[in-house]
Amino acid sequence: MISRVAILSTGDELTSGKIADTNAQWLADRCSSMGLDVVAVLGVGDHRDRITWAWENALAQADLVISTGGLGPTSDDLTTETVAALLGEPLRFDPEVANRIRAMFRAMGREMPENNLRQAYFPESAVVIPNPLGTAPGYRASCRRGGADRQLVVLPGVPREMFRMFDETVGPWIAGSIDARTVVATRTFQTFGVSESALDERVGGVIRPDEARISYRASFPKIAVKLMLRDLPDRAEGRIEELAGRVRAELGTAIYGEGEVSMEEVVGRALTGRGATVALAESCSGGLIGHRLTEVPGSSAYFIADYVAYSNAAKRDILGVSATTLEQHGAVSEEVAREMAAGARRRAGATVAVATTGLAGPEGGTPEKPVGTVCLALSAADQEVSRRHQLWGSRDWIKLLTSQLALDWLRRWALGLSVVESGFRK
Amino acid sequence: MISRVAILSTGDELTSGKIADTNAQWLADRCSSMGLDVVAVLGVGDHRDRITWAWENALAQADLVISTGGLGPTSDDLTTETVAALLGEPLRFDPEVANRIRAMFRAMGREMPENNLRQAYFPESAVVIPNPLGTAPGYRASCRRGGADRQLVVLPGVPREMFRMFDETVGPWIAGSIDARTVVATRTFQTFGVSESALDERVGGVIRPDEARISYRASFPKIAVKLMLRDLPDRAEGRIEELAGRVRAELGTAIYGEGEVSMEEVVGRALTGRGATVALAESCSGGLIGHRLTEVPGSSAYFIADYVAYSNAAKRDILGVSATTLEQHGAVSEEVAREMAAGARRRAGATVAVATTGLAGPEGGTPEKPVGTVCLALSAADQEVSRRHQLWGSRDWIKLLTSQLALDWLRRWALGLSVVESGFRK
Repeated sequence: MISRVAILSTGDELTSGKIADTNAQWLADRCSSMGLDVVAVLGVGDHRDRITWAWENALAQADLVISTGGLGPTSDDLTTETVAALLGEPLRFDPEVANRIRAMFRAMGREMPENNLRQAYFPESAVVIPNPLGTAPGYRASCRRGGADRQLVVLPGVPREMFRMFDETVGPWIAGSIDARTVVATRTFQTFGVSESALDERVGGVIRPDEARISYRASFPKIAVKLMLRDLPDRAEGRIEELAGRVRAELGTAIYGEGEVSMEEVVGRALTGRGATVALAESCSGGLIGHRLTEVPGSSAYFIADYVAYSNAAKRDILGVSATTLEQHGAVSEEVAREMAAGARRRAGATVAVATTGLAGPEGGTPEKPVGTVCLALSAADQEVSRRHQLWGSRDWIKLLTSQLALDWLRRWALGLSVVESGFRK
Repeated sequence: MISRVAILSTGDELTSGKIADTNAQWLADRCSSMGLDVVAVLGVGDHRDRITWAWENALAQADLVISTGGLGPTSDDLTTETVAALLGEPLRFDPEVANRIRAMFRAMGREMPENNLRQAYFPESAVVIPNPLGTAPGYRASCRRGGADRQLVVLPGVPREMFRMFDETVGPWIAGSIDARTVVATRTFQTFGVSESALDERVGGVIRPDEARISYRASFPKIAVKLMLRDLPDRAEGRIEELAGRVRAELGTAIYGEGEVSMEEVVGRALTGRGATVALAESCSGGLIGHRLTEVPGSSAYFIADYVAYSNAAKRDILGVSATTLEQHGAVSEEVAREMAAGARRRAGATVAVATTGLAGPEGGTPEKPVGTVCLALSAADQEVSRRHQLWGSRDWIKLLTSQLALDWLRRWALGLSVVESGFRK
């Protein structure tokens, strides 16, 4: 039975600081989600003695060690010979894997360098883990350490290959090695506007720790809430759905999506659902809202135009904001935001438009309008709304928050919810 | 003398996969740049026995162990008591640090929770490392392991606090502990348009491995080339500058900046230097160029407007692209790009304008115009240029490459260089 896991990453690019070890993060997330305890994460460069040291330390701590990296075809790829040595096994040549590597090179119309056949050698007892996307397969094996059985899983370091191999082969194998009678059920909620500590309080208020594992992943301004439980196959889904219902009731419209979905995608679907087209008028957000909306494939079906009017003259000429309004209220005002939104909607002939104007800083703040003052407005046939927000942080941060608010307004409008309830609450 | 370093990160957020260990990456980069050998990177959760295990393993391998995390005020912050135990020392209370913490809370107008005073306790022999940005100071100490002196550096896990403390206090102390007779000299070049392998060939062709350490950091589409050498204080700067001259001669205008500078900042400075204002007309890049230009503080001085015209109607109405051109050549054409650029410049009254139109995919490609076809145009009083590029990759990737090309065109125009030489070469 597997319960304690160590994750081992090999490669000079990690110890030289060229890249962050995102493979380890991804694996730690997957393993934690399956209810495993990740006891250590280790990274070493391409040195035989350091790889051996890391493996022995990992095997002393964990039932299962998952390694990535060091499976390439060149002489500094040392994982397999190191693993064979610590298993006390010779290498065996796998002709089937060799043929597959040759076929992959033929399919790409390229000559196979002879050293690529290094990837067809495995420790004698290893079970090969197929790699549908690359030439280096992985493998698993087992050994005894500290009077107990230890499992070794060896995967390549190329992220997309490793992800796929884990999800297709390693994950199901681990699931079977944990506890064959139960399954894992999960639900993920994407939220905006509630702080992580407030989410913790509110979700913790409706779900007890013994009912499900609750975790939070903040990549501000969005925070994902994840529920995970393990139960018998005929009960797990019903139980998680019951808990999910409580979270939905508690968080309401602060949840903008479930599963792995972005705010941009949600907005796109909501606009499509309402048969609406959209235009934007951006000042302080500088094009970021348009950029985000157009990250979604097919957005040309509902996105018409974005008028980034940075100067006052541009606000007048492009969006038809009146000189009087600019003079009386200043560029950063709800009044100007409303005229910008109305102007964008009219000019583009769109169903709905959102406008932003604000002070992203670091210069330009005043006591009445400090850096972080941002005005939003929405214009549609059924309503004209505006609101002033006091945001905070650095320039890029204020732009990001502004874009998230604007997208949330669009989502709320398209779903027939109250727009002005969007924002940051405890 | 310090030469081998281990980096140790503490926190459940690492072993649960909530975050990637970017602190370790940052420290590995800093240490490698100083010529140190990073022998291992370790991460463990907030468990006393695991933190102890990680420290002992790190101290067995390295002259210096740098730890981050576990210095917070709550009961799951265990670093200091663990370190004191492995040093065999009691904790001492530092009244000066305690007063500073109290003063910080007063300055924020907040009550200090009593448990914050935990951050004023240190192992008896520890030398405090000031934290100008937060309440948790770091410290350093030393011990004996394996018959040799080992140095311990303990820092908080909050990145911006840790970065500052390392650069202000730890880095200079390490530099003095490496080899007092020599200093490190570095040069960093920001490049665009040359692949990493081609850079490696070309830079490797003008600088021998024994002259300087050459490293590359790719966060595509930009790649930084870094030179590093160690020499006597009166020789290091002269030598690195001589090598830098060879790199400049070899790479020419593919270098867009030196040191830590972004393409957006370089463009801003170049436009300011020429006294120029800029307008944009974006189609496939969807606002990303405007977003990037406005990430730079003070960009309102030269950035007037960005017309994101996604639909054909918007291209006609907003930018004055002729219906005939759209019909004859299609929206993705050099002809339309030229009219978009000219229209944006005229409408905004700007000195220069750049336009993009292309197919970001994944749908919409044809044999004549496959996904990745992108046309750029630049309009200024002195020239009207356009070019068709065949880019590659996913939707977000094509948008990013398009924005980088457009910014590079603006840079080249503002510096009086040939615009169309921008692009991707071997």
